[in-house]
Amino acid sequence: MGHNSFGTAYTVTTFGESHGPALGVIIDGVEPGFKIDEGAIQKEMDRRRPGANPTGTERNEIDKLTILSGTYEGFTTGTPIAMILYSTNQRSADYSHLEHVYRPGHADWTFAQKYGIRDIRGGGRSSGRETSARVAAGALAKQLLAKRGITIKAGTVQVGEVIARERHWDETDNPLSCPDRKAAQSMVALIEQVRNEKDSIGGIIECRVEGVRPGLGEPVFGKLEALLSHAVMSIGAVKGIQFGDGFACASMRGSQFNDQRTSDGFLSNHAGGILGGISSGQEIVLQAAIKPTASIGKPQQTVTKNNETTTLKIEGRHDPCICSRAVVVIESMVAITLLDLYYTAFGKA
Amino acid sequence: MGHNSFGTAYTVTTFGESHGPALGVIIDGVEPGFKIDEGAIQKEMDRRRPGANPTGTERNEIDKLTILSGTYEGFTTGTPIAMILYSTNQRSADYSHLEHVYRPGHADWTFAQKYGIRDIRGGGRSSGRETSARVAAGALAKQLLAKRGITIKAGTVQVGEVIARERHWDETDNPLSCPDRKAAQSMVALIEQVRNEKDSIGGIIECRVEGVRPGLGEPVFGKLEALLSHAVMSIGAVKGIQFGDGFACASMRGSQFNDQRTSDGFLSNHAGGILGGISSGQEIVLQAAIKPTASIGKPQQTVTKNNETTTLKIEGRHDPCICSRAVVVIESMVAITLLDLYYTAFGKA
Amino acid sequence: MGHNSFGTAYTVTTFGESHGPALGVIIDGVEPGFKIDEGAIQKEMDRRRPGANPTGTERNEIDKLTILSGTYEGFTTGTPIAMILYSTNQRSADYSHLEHVYRPGHADWTFAQKYGIRDIRGGGRSSGRETSARVAAGALAKQLLAKRGITIKAGTVQVGEVIARERHWDETDNPLSCPDRKAAQSMVALIEQVRNEKDSIGGIIECRVEGVRPGLGEPVFGKLEALLSHAVMSIGAVKGIQFGDGFACASMRGSQFNDQRTSDGFLSNHAGGILGGISSGQEIVLQAAIKPTASIGKPQQTVTKNNETTTLKIEGRHDPCICSRAVVVIESMVAITLLDLYYTAFGKA
Amino acid sequence: MGHNSFGTAYTVTTFGESHGPALGVIIDGVEPGFKIDEGAIQKEMDRRRPGANPTGTERNEIDKLTILSGTYEGFTTGTPIAMILYSTNQRSADYSHLEHVYRPGHADWTFAQKYGIRDIRGGGRSSGRETSARVAAGALAKQLLAKRGITIKAGTVQVGEVIARERHWDETDNPLSCPDRKAAQSMVALIEQVRNEKDSIGGIIECRVEGVRPGLGEPVFGKLEALLSHAVMSIGAVKGIQFGDGFACASMRGSQFNDQRTSDGFLSNHAGGILGGISSGQEIVLQAAIKPTASIGKPQQTVTKNNETTTLKIEGRHDPCICSRAVVVIESMVAITLLDLYYTAFGKA
Repeated sequence: MGHNSFGTAYTVTTFGESHGPALGVIIDGVEPGFKIDEGAIQKEMDRRRPGANPTGTERNEIDKLTILSGTYEGFTTGTPIAMILYSTNQRSADYSHLEHVYRPGHADWTFAQKYGIRDIRGGGRSSGRETSARVAAGALAKQLLAKRGITIKAGTVQVGEVIARERHWDETDNPLSCPDRKAAQSMVALIEQVRNEKDSIGGIIECRVEGVRPGLGEPVFGKLEALLSHAVMSIGAVKGIQFGDGFACASMRGSQFNDQRTSDGFLSNHAGGILGGISSGQEIVLQAAIKPTASIGKPQQTVTKNNETTTLKIEGRHDPCICSRAVVVIESMVAITLLDLYYTAFGKA
Repeated sequence: MGHNSFGTAYTVTTFGESHGPALGVIIDGVEPGFKIDEGAIQKEMDRRRPGANPTGTERNEIDKLTILSGTYEGFTTGTPIAMILYSTNQRSADYSHLEHVYRPGHADWTFAQKYGIRDIRGGGRSSGRETSARVAAGALAKQLLAKRGITIKAGTVQVGEVIARERHWDETDNPLSCPDRKAAQSMVALIEQVRNEKDSIGGIIECRVEGVRPGLGEPVFGKLEALLSHAVMSIGAVKGIQFGDGFACASMRGSQFNDQRTSDGFLSNHAGGILGGISSGQEIVLQAAIKPTASIGKPQQTVTKNNETTTLKIEGRHDPCICSRAVVVIESMVAITLLDLYYTAFGKA
Repeated sequence: MGHNSFGTAYTVTTFGESHGPALGVIIDGVEPGFKIDEGAIQKEMDRRRPGANPTGTERNEIDKLTILSGTYEGFTTGTPIAMILYSTNQRSADYSHLEHVYRPGHADWTFAQKYGIRDIRGGGRSSGRETSARVAAGALAKQLLAKRGITIKAGTVQVGEVIARERHWDETDNPLSCPDRKAAQSMVALIEQVRNEKDSIGGIIECRVEGVRPGLGEPVFGKLEALLSHAVMSIGAVKGIQFGDGFACASMRGSQFNDQRTSDGFLSNHAGGILGGISSGQEIVLQAAIKPTASIGKPQQTVTKNNETTTLKIEGRHDPCICSRAVVVIESMVAITLLDLYYTAFGKA
Repeated sequence: MGHNSFGTAYTVTTFGESHGPALGVIIDGVEPGFKIDEGAIQKEMDRRRPGANPTGTERNEIDKLTILSGTYEGFTTGTPIAMILYSTNQRSADYSHLEHVYRPGHADWTFAQKYGIRDIRGGGRSSGRETSARVAAGALAKQLLAKRGITIKAGTVQVGEVIARERHWDETDNPLSCPDRKAAQSMVALIEQVRNEKDSIGGIIECRVEGVRPGLGEPVFGKLEALLSHAVMSIGAVKGIQFGDGFACASMRGSQFNDQRTSDGFLSNHAGGILGGISSGQEIVLQAAIKPTASIGKPQQTVTKNNETTTLKIEGRHDPCICSRAVVVIESMVAITLLDLYYTAFGKA
């Protein structure tokens, strides 16, 4: 299977370049007879959309989704669902100045090395815009998981030095979906400051999953952490992932880290809801490190196609912090992975 | 494909339980005509072996490898290579006291939930002993990568509060393969102290890969970080992974994190050698968080099969810190992943 | 991977229902830097199109292909190629009379049993129209194989009792692509007679591949015959496949069937160009049995949704013999399989 | 996944060379809690074993199976089952005379071309002995299918010119498992005659499956015929496969071929139990063409490694007709395929 596909039972295949005529996703393996809520999918698309959010880019694109196959009278039929986003605004001319130079922190150079050819229009296939296709597939997966009692919720818990100390998951109605209202305000202010400095900034996103029953995850290479890591680390901006106490476990004792248990249940959740690669029935908790956006207005050294040193300032409207938009992409990849495993372990009924 | 397999071009399938008659690995896709160095594979097995190392368990097992297929007069033929480890010391009686109780931090409970049946002998398939099969496959992968100019080196860089500040990768001849001799001594002392307290402790392992040419990694779901994360997170003790600056990028600016470049090459390596999911030709750098060993001698609360609260002290010789043995397992999973991608991207010649 | 995908290195995923808004194909793994000949792909589409051919249905559909991704300035980029066919003529009303009845010989009943829901519009996903997406992927594969010196040519060699005795592969410019002109005329006449009888008829298609170098095919489950059989038998109308002498080998002696060899090469080709599942460098020869079209105007007994016996005459314009259109579908599936194996065995360069 | 594996939910991986130290199979995905009948597996092994049967070779090998993993107290645990056959009789010296010559009809030449290296000991991996690993996996699959009410039965229906006219599936207790007693006697006599002529002969094997419920098979590339064809055509001796009326459909009318239906059920089974690639609930019927054994004692022209023409007589005890032993191999591949699809479509419960 090609690497533009993910999953074995709920198989997601994405296609399309940033500034090509269309982006889309084919989903193979969806259970038949499910009434899709198209409005809810569109709402998820809007969460990822640039311009929807004051911390993001100022561009205003419309990610209007069209379903081309796999449904009959609004219900899934068991055949592949194709969802497509036509580009309303191809502006390919905008990028001609990048034809001969590699942007630092971008995939420009590695794509050129790998393929010997590079679609310079907005990053082509390496653009963050590719994730819109994942959000479409993730939004449908969420609906199918909700039917099974599972909810997925992510939010930004760190931007630069600002760290969320609280976890109020019913109070994430802020641009960063941050579960700490005060921290959210500071994050927004910091991002504005960084934008004015023509710079960008990183962050951490936390994702929590409730309602997963024990038994999800396949030993030994299909451990739940392994598959979730594969999924989340396939998002371009992510540079690290951890479960439960994660890297903090390095300085813990076994007597602290082990989740003890009584007949009333587990006494703690240091493991993040996964034991031996299999869900324990506790909440699944993971965090992803988000790197600073690569496109910045500050001057940077780089090389041309002929390997001459040059200085580049990237003009245009770019997100100074991608966290606000990455939240829904992480939720989507988690949803796709969990549904895929649900189908494998427990069937589609 | 079942989840006891990993890789698409260099496909590794492991089988066997901790205390069954044998453990083994089948490797499909190995290039023909390669002279296997069996002695070098056995040396890698010995690095993982309990008892080989003062920081590990005191048990003394012999992981003697036998090759059953795939070679002719010492050369690979292109057919599947089966390598097997027969158990010399099955001691299944040792574990009968665990039949009715779930060990905290172990996969006992989740395996029972998932399968409705549990092989209580030493953890069965969830035992760390399963990783010996991975080391065999990884040791062969390393030889095939060495032929391509690639070297993989891992070492412990943190145990508890002790952090390695130096990186002397030619001075890792210590029980933890730590690249900082002084830190290594403190780590060993700390582990001894923890052992005496009948407790265990976690750590961090760093892995570096030199010689990977640009172009390795497959957009979009097969990004190099995604596949390496899948591989490394499938090791039972690992709870987090990060590349380059990893989680530290959360508090960095883009102008700090971006790796600028001149005609002489990159000026830094914050990205850990991977851009857009594709190798850049720089050194690949990753770190994995290792949790404290679950088996400890201290009393812990847990439940019986009938969900009655009980207290358990785990007797016997157990590793207080798994880092010393996990080093070679991480190297192995990295080697398997890289060779698999090499075969896919550049062929077997 | 879902079963709407085929191939591991040149991976083809199709979607779309007969009378939905669009049908399409995503191809993952195409080598970068190849100049696609879109006109040649369209010509292949036209070979499969109904109405293009006097022996086929009289409907006149246009299969106009649009490429949505994977190319830049006409060259492939190494990213997934999406090709789409929009339906110009959805006529979903035509099929309402089939809502409560299962057509004999069709997938109506089995789809309903499998999925509990059925897209009645023209067979939905089980329609022969799905093969148009395969032809698009196959047409591109043919171009990529031609670059490697490989040509694929199929033709009808039997319709009913009319059997082609000659093999003039440069004289197949007849409605059935039959390599025997005289037989072709008789076949056309027989099909017309069958059409007038409101009946349909089966046939045999032969496919020959020249230029495949020795070494293609992967032991043991990926034998060349096994993968080609998988590919060709996945076409709805095919009920049998054979290689070289095929079923005739049942009454042959080893001394007749074995292809002997001198220093000048093989003396015969009873094996059809494949030994031990691997191409021998000889011409690859296979035949596929094509069943009579299921939709006929004659009255047939069948059941309603409530399992009441009823009689059905299928009205409308249907192909009395599908061979003329299946020729290019078989060529396409052969091309997809061979290119997939070429990529795996010999790389994409 | 490598091509030494087959299946996605019940995944079978075989390894081992004809005259290596061992052959084996790893089965991943077996449902937990099933009591394996080892004696019944051994009986199936014995059906394939040379020397068990007067029509086969006179060699007397013992295929004694050992289970190395995946069971606990006789029950499956859900972890991979490894079954191994140690070679008791390696006789590698016997084959040295073949080092410099390619046997006609064998994979000798194509293996050498593909891999540049060839294990000359008894054909190495291309030997029919590899199928013993499939029979082990198939025997277990049969037990798991029997639990679901499914029975698989194959028998020889043609050898040379001798054709079985009867189908008494309860009277197959003859060396060829032929469902026609009289024909069986003629077949045995014919094979003896061919043996005396130092020649070999082909045949046809028919396989019937009862008890498959409607809904098995996955559109579009995973059609039941496509997957069964892949499975059966991966057996070295098979050169053709057909379902139901198969190639005979070429000269049939739709009004003859379509299986009509009343409220009492189908009136015929020309389609062989499969419609649109999905099981209809009728008996599944397929036939496979078996080529004459390649190893014959008659002189044949061939070439040496240096491409010099030479004449070869293959000495030793070889099967003049492989049908008697191929019957259980075909049953096994059908069983593996069906169980794999059952797991995918209906789960493991």
